[in-house]
Amino acid sequence: MLITLTTDFGSVDPFVGIMKGVIARINPQVQVVDLSHGIPPQDVMAGALVLRDCIAFFPRDTIHVAVIDPGVGTARRPLLVESDGKYLIGPDNGVLSLALKNTAPDRLIHLSNSSYHLRPTSATFHGRDIFAPVAAHLSLGVDPTLLGDPLDGFVHLTWPQVFQSKLGIEGEIIHIDRFGNLFTNISEGDLLALPKDQLRISLGNIIIDGLVHHYAAGEDGRSIALINSSGLLEIAVYKDSAERRHLAGIGDKVHISVREK
Amino acid sequence: MLITLTTDFGSVDPFVGIMKGVIARINPQVQVVDLSHGIPPQDVMAGALVLRDCIAFFPRDTIHVAVIDPGVGTARRPLLVESDGKYLIGPDNGVLSLALKNTAPDRLIHLSNSSYHLRPTSATFHGRDIFAPVAAHLSLGVDPTLLGDPLDGFVHLTWPQVFQSKLGIEGEIIHIDRFGNLFTNISEGDLLALPKDQLRISLGNIIIDGLVHHYAAGEDGRSIALINSSGLLEIAVYKDSAERRHLAGIGDKVHISVREK
Amino acid sequence: MLITLTTDFGSVDPFVGIMKGVIARINPQVQVVDLSHGIPPQDVMAGALVLRDCIAFFPRDTIHVAVIDPGVGTARRPLLVESDGKYLIGPDNGVLSLALKNTAPDRLIHLSNSSYHLRPTSATFHGRDIFAPVAAHLSLGVDPTLLGDPLDGFVHLTWPQVFQSKLGIEGEIIHIDRFGNLFTNISEGDLLALPKDQLRISLGNIIIDGLVHHYAAGEDGRSIALINSSGLLEIAVYKDSAERRHLAGIGDKVHISVREK
Repeated sequence: MLITLTTDFGSVDPFVGIMKGVIARINPQVQVVDLSHGIPPQDVMAGALVLRDCIAFFPRDTIHVAVIDPGVGTARRPLLVESDGKYLIGPDNGVLSLALKNTAPDRLIHLSNSSYHLRPTSATFHGRDIFAPVAAHLSLGVDPTLLGDPLDGFVHLTWPQVFQSKLGIEGEIIHIDRFGNLFTNISEGDLLALPKDQLRISLGNIIIDGLVHHYAAGEDGRSIALINSSGLLEIAVYKDSAERRHLAGIGDKVHISVREK
Repeated sequence: MLITLTTDFGSVDPFVGIMKGVIARINPQVQVVDLSHGIPPQDVMAGALVLRDCIAFFPRDTIHVAVIDPGVGTARRPLLVESDGKYLIGPDNGVLSLALKNTAPDRLIHLSNSSYHLRPTSATFHGRDIFAPVAAHLSLGVDPTLLGDPLDGFVHLTWPQVFQSKLGIEGEIIHIDRFGNLFTNISEGDLLALPKDQLRISLGNIIIDGLVHHYAAGEDGRSIALINSSGLLEIAVYKDSAERRHLAGIGDKVHISVREK
Repeated sequence: MLITLTTDFGSVDPFVGIMKGVIARINPQVQVVDLSHGIPPQDVMAGALVLRDCIAFFPRDTIHVAVIDPGVGTARRPLLVESDGKYLIGPDNGVLSLALKNTAPDRLIHLSNSSYHLRPTSATFHGRDIFAPVAAHLSLGVDPTLLGDPLDGFVHLTWPQVFQSKLGIEGEIIHIDRFGNLFTNISEGDLLALPKDQLRISLGNIIIDGLVHHYAAGEDGRSIALINSSGLLEIAVYKDSAERRHLAGIGDKVHISVREK
């Protein structure tokens, strides 16, 4: 059994280590894997995108815990989502929602049963006091229905929409990775209707003609576009940062049009 | 059995990975958990505060290794502290001392038995050559008395003192976390003598009246004060950095007074 | 069994977490240890130096995976190197080559058998699609010869050469660690021919006379030189950064001469 952790706690403070201590005290056998602790502070969308990207690659019964939780201690509910054999645990603020990719959850539980929490429960660190212990108990085989009351709905984030028109497609940059590669919200499927060999990608006044298959195709230093390993259209510069070269940022618009042959 | 690691080695150099290799060679079964490797270089106090904050949340027989060790290779002793079923391993420079929270250690050992060290033993990396192998042997059940000679005392750091007077309480900022939240040395207990609903917290010319329970209570953007998950008075700004907003730093004084009703 | 990971993926993006998910799906029992994910983007030499430094400290049958892979998706081959009971897995771009320290590999395999890869295999993330699954299968005991075809040679990086002359030794800075310590390519062995008590080390116009044993020998603030825990000549400043103080960088020349008695 595996528990993954995704947080905005960074790698300097011991918050992540404390959560692992809590888990180990309850289930010393379970393995814990870090997805990312470098989510920008309070950036629920960024955390949701990480979960969306990762969970397909983990074993089916993995428990994924996400703690990007600016509303900790308020009325926002601690949540368990069960979907296709996977468990997602975190605050009900949308951070768990994109991982489901438009499928309905099999079960939603409001984690209200404090017998499975650390007590006293702080109002400022539910990662330690609620999400870690609940994940650990779940990994021991506790029946999810014991963890709290069923819910009918939960908070959804909206996947930033791609606009399709006769003029082409308009999307935006939703993530920039360590290499300065620009991830857009435009998926491989969005491009199917357009003639593949006539695609023109524009970002501000940068124009890229055609898609390439790998980064080294941009060895000559020009900007390139490709479908990346997440299945999304990405703008990159080989061995350089497209973010720095184009002064690009999250939310910048990207247009796809069809150029003349 | 669990070994935790707290170091100032950062996440770029392979020093932490090497320590894990040494541990795995001696005890391939033991689980290793990172508390923090982002301790500022040579900041023994910062490392001691991390251990103090974390160890209560780990299983009783966990082995905690801390390597913030500017005196490596000098006469400063490599040390094992046993306290209430927990083991602490590191240099005798105070880094292990705050975790005991004013209790006397059950046992102190000078880790002088080089049979449990890597040989040749360098004068510059005792994390690899002494602390990691000793922790791994201990996790295999080696009797602590075999690891070296008993000691009568060890180096203590002083928990920065809180001053109480008729005018109120004076403390200071002892840690700033990733979110820019300002941890003070003033504990919940220090505030018990004062009327809870009339507390006034001052940091420079910033005045905060009263405590809140969670970060979102500062949704309107004002600075807030609360008792944080470590049981310490903390100054914060919701979804923003109190450090940046108030240009605050470690050591800045914080005053608590009682305001008129 | 242990798998180590060395990448330039950083700690913000979930690429490393995804690789661990892939490994866990194939072999849930295997332990994964991070060596470094902070290799500068595309810096194959820096990754090769980490592997060289670390692998001697790991158990003999450890599988070391290195993904610094600017040529991903091109004709560069995915590679398995077997040497003295250790396995090294990564792109054939030299990143695996320095770990062998001039010994010949016992076996070289082109990882061409796609039955052991994730399918579909992307052209941009072989860490996930080839190296992680191959390492996981290998950790389950799959015979290496099943993973692909034998090779006769692989890409070697050159260990930056040290020049010896009557005037002394010329080397260079090859790595700067978190503390700002300057690692040179000059090894303890290179210095054997020179009289130990008359060594003079020069970096630009900085002159250091003699070697010390540990960092605290520079308590008075002067720059020091020592043989570090990797067996290399290192220039350091106690509790300070030699990199910042001397504005030093990778590739800067370091000269060793013999001073008059």
